[in-house]
Amino acid sequence: MKGFASDNNSGVHPEIMKALTEVNKEHAVGYGGDEVTARVEKLFQNIFGPDVAVFFVYNGTGANVVALQAMTQPFNSIICAETAHIHVDECGAPEKHTGCKILTVKSPDGKLTPQLLETHLHGFGFEHHAQPGVVSISQVTELGTLYSLDELKTLAEFVHSKGLLLHMDGARIGNAAAALGCSLKNLTTDVGVDVLSFGGTKNGLMFGEAVVFFNPDLVANVKYIRKQTTQLHSKMRFIAAQYEAYFKDELWRKNAAHANRMANLLANELELIEGVQITQKVQANSVFAIIPPYIIEPLQNKYFFYIWDEVRNEVRWMTSFDTSEEDIKSFSSELKFLLHRVN
Amino acid sequence: MKGFASDNNSGVHPEIMKALTEVNKEHAVGYGGDEVTARVEKLFQNIFGPDVAVFFVYNGTGANVVALQAMTQPFNSIICAETAHIHVDECGAPEKHTGCKILTVKSPDGKLTPQLLETHLHGFGFEHHAQPGVVSISQVTELGTLYSLDELKTLAEFVHSKGLLLHMDGARIGNAAAALGCSLKNLTTDVGVDVLSFGGTKNGLMFGEAVVFFNPDLVANVKYIRKQTTQLHSKMRFIAAQYEAYFKDELWRKNAAHANRMANLLANELELIEGVQITQKVQANSVFAIIPPYIIEPLQNKYFFYIWDEVRNEVRWMTSFDTSEEDIKSFSSELKFLLHRVN
Amino acid sequence: MKGFASDNNSGVHPEIMKALTEVNKEHAVGYGGDEVTARVEKLFQNIFGPDVAVFFVYNGTGANVVALQAMTQPFNSIICAETAHIHVDECGAPEKHTGCKILTVKSPDGKLTPQLLETHLHGFGFEHHAQPGVVSISQVTELGTLYSLDELKTLAEFVHSKGLLLHMDGARIGNAAAALGCSLKNLTTDVGVDVLSFGGTKNGLMFGEAVVFFNPDLVANVKYIRKQTTQLHSKMRFIAAQYEAYFKDELWRKNAAHANRMANLLANELELIEGVQITQKVQANSVFAIIPPYIIEPLQNKYFFYIWDEVRNEVRWMTSFDTSEEDIKSFSSELKFLLHRVN
Amino acid sequence: MKGFASDNNSGVHPEIMKALTEVNKEHAVGYGGDEVTARVEKLFQNIFGPDVAVFFVYNGTGANVVALQAMTQPFNSIICAETAHIHVDECGAPEKHTGCKILTVKSPDGKLTPQLLETHLHGFGFEHHAQPGVVSISQVTELGTLYSLDELKTLAEFVHSKGLLLHMDGARIGNAAAALGCSLKNLTTDVGVDVLSFGGTKNGLMFGEAVVFFNPDLVANVKYIRKQTTQLHSKMRFIAAQYEAYFKDELWRKNAAHANRMANLLANELELIEGVQITQKVQANSVFAIIPPYIIEPLQNKYFFYIWDEVRNEVRWMTSFDTSEEDIKSFSSELKFLLHRVN
Repeated sequence: MKGFASDNNSGVHPEIMKALTEVNKEHAVGYGGDEVTARVEKLFQNIFGPDVAVFFVYNGTGANVVALQAMTQPFNSIICAETAHIHVDECGAPEKHTGCKILTVKSPDGKLTPQLLETHLHGFGFEHHAQPGVVSISQVTELGTLYSLDELKTLAEFVHSKGLLLHMDGARIGNAAAALGCSLKNLTTDVGVDVLSFGGTKNGLMFGEAVVFFNPDLVANVKYIRKQTTQLHSKMRFIAAQYEAYFKDELWRKNAAHANRMANLLANELELIEGVQITQKVQANSVFAIIPPYIIEPLQNKYFFYIWDEVRNEVRWMTSFDTSEEDIKSFSSELKFLLHRVN
Repeated sequence: MKGFASDNNSGVHPEIMKALTEVNKEHAVGYGGDEVTARVEKLFQNIFGPDVAVFFVYNGTGANVVALQAMTQPFNSIICAETAHIHVDECGAPEKHTGCKILTVKSPDGKLTPQLLETHLHGFGFEHHAQPGVVSISQVTELGTLYSLDELKTLAEFVHSKGLLLHMDGARIGNAAAALGCSLKNLTTDVGVDVLSFGGTKNGLMFGEAVVFFNPDLVANVKYIRKQTTQLHSKMRFIAAQYEAYFKDELWRKNAAHANRMANLLANELELIEGVQITQKVQANSVFAIIPPYIIEPLQNKYFFYIWDEVRNEVRWMTSFDTSEEDIKSFSSELKFLLHRVN
Repeated sequence: MKGFASDNNSGVHPEIMKALTEVNKEHAVGYGGDEVTARVEKLFQNIFGPDVAVFFVYNGTGANVVALQAMTQPFNSIICAETAHIHVDECGAPEKHTGCKILTVKSPDGKLTPQLLETHLHGFGFEHHAQPGVVSISQVTELGTLYSLDELKTLAEFVHSKGLLLHMDGARIGNAAAALGCSLKNLTTDVGVDVLSFGGTKNGLMFGEAVVFFNPDLVANVKYIRKQTTQLHSKMRFIAAQYEAYFKDELWRKNAAHANRMANLLANELELIEGVQITQKVQANSVFAIIPPYIIEPLQNKYFFYIWDEVRNEVRWMTSFDTSEEDIKSFSSELKFLLHRVN
Repeated sequence: MKGFASDNNSGVHPEIMKALTEVNKEHAVGYGGDEVTARVEKLFQNIFGPDVAVFFVYNGTGANVVALQAMTQPFNSIICAETAHIHVDECGAPEKHTGCKILTVKSPDGKLTPQLLETHLHGFGFEHHAQPGVVSISQVTELGTLYSLDELKTLAEFVHSKGLLLHMDGARIGNAAAALGCSLKNLTTDVGVDVLSFGGTKNGLMFGEAVVFFNPDLVANVKYIRKQTTQLHSKMRFIAAQYEAYFKDELWRKNAAHANRMANLLANELELIEGVQITQKVQANSVFAIIPPYIIEPLQNKYFFYIWDEVRNEVRWMTSFDTSEEDIKSFSSELKFLLHRVN
């Protein structure tokens, strides 16, 4: 039974599984010294530009933590939205690994703006104050919303004008590019991102994310940081091969576009249902909605999902590359049934 | 072409790959809340005893670092052999993650003894001195040698009598159990190990190790430590399923026993070759040998392997679950050819 | 020329200086093993209760960081007011030393309440979430306001009922006790504080603060934590002797009460001046006020002080044990002169 | 009663106490923004050269830890003698604060040489290996021995030729300069030290050490590192004023030379006593000796001192700026008496 708890509840896309099976032959030098990894590193340069450096890691928290270590010193602060994954969902990993302070900004839609950042941009050069070092944004945000290319460009310019660096948590960057109809390069290299946590696991991979460096000044020590962070895989070809398949014919875009479509379908269904109030723009593959509290538990018994805000009965439903139209229909039927029954 | 650089240069065992393919259906709750993970956690209890707790992580350094964090406070010291993986091969990860001091003991065969430990067991209660907290041993050691069950028991008793805890880095524990003809439980639960880093990747898995806690006092916070260390996988069933296959019909023992046999075969071949001097007991799946310097590079060109000690021209050759008798024969032929040619 | 920038701009009280001179004879065992330190540790027990343990450190940030390390594990969060010294003025030291996440609460008067804390008290047992571990309050707050004894008691009970610990940053605890007319014990032991950072430097000492533990479960490892944090002084008697003089005839209370009185005098003067708006209750030794922007710089040229909020032209004036009535008069005259002149 | 446990058991030199009393007037800007601090910073530049930067801290461990943080990244290793204070006597502070690995070298006299360092100078660029970053030496060493100026120069050149930085723990650098009859600049700037932990507390100060940077590339972030390490004093003039008096007419040299002379006198006395074997060259203000075990405790009852090596009954006696000839005579008489009595 498929649920709507998270896009990481889905499995591995068949093309990815096929790539894993095919790369499993003979021996290969470990830790990324193999031919497949070399080939896929080139692929990242084809996609993002010739100057990027890519480092494979295990998971999203690993990617974020490796990225942030490369971008900071312990006396820096990292500024992000109050809803950011690095602040809410990583059990304090960024603080532990970097030693930095995280400063948050209240943002109704999970997005940062120059204006919202201003509140934390002071105390430069004042030794009592953690020195602002990095702004970290999520694209797609944790509320399922998107930055436009213009918004990203404006933000990057602002961040750089203040002497800070821009990190993008791209756990769902594929969904963003699919939704905006642009390339991955448009979203990152072209707007001025310094480092990207490039996610694949939520979009059909088994494991393995990538940290992509656009700012060449930050690259020299990343290999040591990755190792010391416990994020260096020995049998690296099994991560690289997944990415090769992921990039082939833009599999990532197909998967992401499908998930986005399913979220839109769900939103369209929900809009017709009285008693359900969608709370965020549905721009990628999630739907946030307030529903009557009495149907939450019975609905969860059939389809696992998370309560986002207990106080206002807001829930989050996420679609994935393998969500079917039928899944959406059954789910909304069940929801309607529960609403009807109880009333 | 197969090499002898490391047992992690091999690929994934077919039974493991099959398990990965089979577990790839439908959705499953993430982060270990799924049924497969629950089932395999039980399996660990069947194997190691009903009181053990198991936590899956990504890799060996991750396993060691999660284990050591659970066993220490930052003002502790961790005592290990000078050759220990946690000291030599993890880019300082244990120090960074735990804050602890690592104290090393010179050991000719990579093994620790109560006598060797004595040198670091002082300064208890003296606030200027990092407080001895953990002894960490490797079974198999990094020099391919083995502790006997008696030696382990004696060591564990000694360690506990001093108020310390015993960690075992079991990156190759399968090879140890196969070589000693005992169970995994014999090697750990029964001798008094507190925490085990249980390795599988070097013996046929794609990724994923396990931290096994025998000491129940250490378990309560491990789930937070694992997450904060960046070692919590979202699609956990893909680690758990590998272990299910790994334990089925003792696949781990078959793989390990085979690798051990191949190392023995290699050693037997080498003993007949003049100019090659084996430097460590061949007890598991590695052979350490001193060879004439002029053949090292030409041999490496055909079979990748590491120089262990540049000063005395000592090299390390490792066999793996998929090393064949033919591989050994070809390799020793090549070695003989090179020795002959140059002379 | 005396200023109003901070109570640490003042010097050392003559009685303290005398004690330093007198203790300077012969040799004494280092690191707190001397007789004076033993005597003063007893004194703390006389004052706070027989079960407290006291550890001398160098400064306030050191005291806070030692206290917080003893109260947390790295996966915990520490909750405090947005204005807290540990969040704003310690360059990220708490995060770096503890590895913990700091969560802040917006509070108009710098004080926390159970209701304000609620927003961060969730995610217990959820491994993705930093586990709430400590609530840290400041008494006097950074805005010069005070918790009443009842408020403290209510807060401590609430914090403990949630399974958290209560830390009090008492950089100005003397001013609090003087203002409330209660004992130091009333403010801490009696209301249920777990650990206190006891400040003296801002009230007439040369250097040296104390961390006082009321919760005996937290004491065992503090001596190692203090040393590892770089906060153990060798010639300890020179800290202890200052505290002996500080406690004698309640010198601390005399100094603090005087400073408080001077702040009140200043506030009274200011209330008569048009164009000056006091923004916080004047309960201890600071006055916060909004003044016309054009007089800030000329006034700073005569009396150094800090701008608290550049946006709304809010400044902070602090009085100290050696501020005289004449200082206050001259200052308010100058202020009036500047207001008059420019208008 | 004076002891021989450590030079930090002595008190504060009268000239230093006088300076503390004299600087105690009026208000002064905190945290080093005052005139006295500015004046003394200049003094350091007069002494060490115009390009040095100096940062006052509280104590020796603080100085070392601030220095090492400025010189390393967490994936570096720090190489030192097995006897180094940073390894043996700081409760793991360097590891905790820097995240680095400490690698030690066995050295019979506490001194490092290029040859001794070689064993740890490998693995450059290899991501599994902590990257050698700093060599830390102590001058005077923890065994009371001295590097000659030539040895220092050779060592610094070697360290730099390998791409590493040289840190000098100068807890007793005054004793070194006095013994070698050279200037402080000769010992540091002129030989190529990158960063010096400059100690004063063991030579007559009350508290306060200095970190002196010769390498300008390392200076930019030190003020944040010092603050975050908890080593920034608010009433800074009370450290600065001590150094002003310490440098005046080379008080430091007088104090140190006297202590050195007393150690020599003690050594001369001991050489005449049968049953006492001096184990290290007496070059500064300590004497290491093996004595019959049965006199250790009775002697300690009269004069506190530390056992250095319990196994071989080696003890350490340290002299200080206020040790008198009479102290030495009484002590050696007592020693002789005990030896005689028991026999």
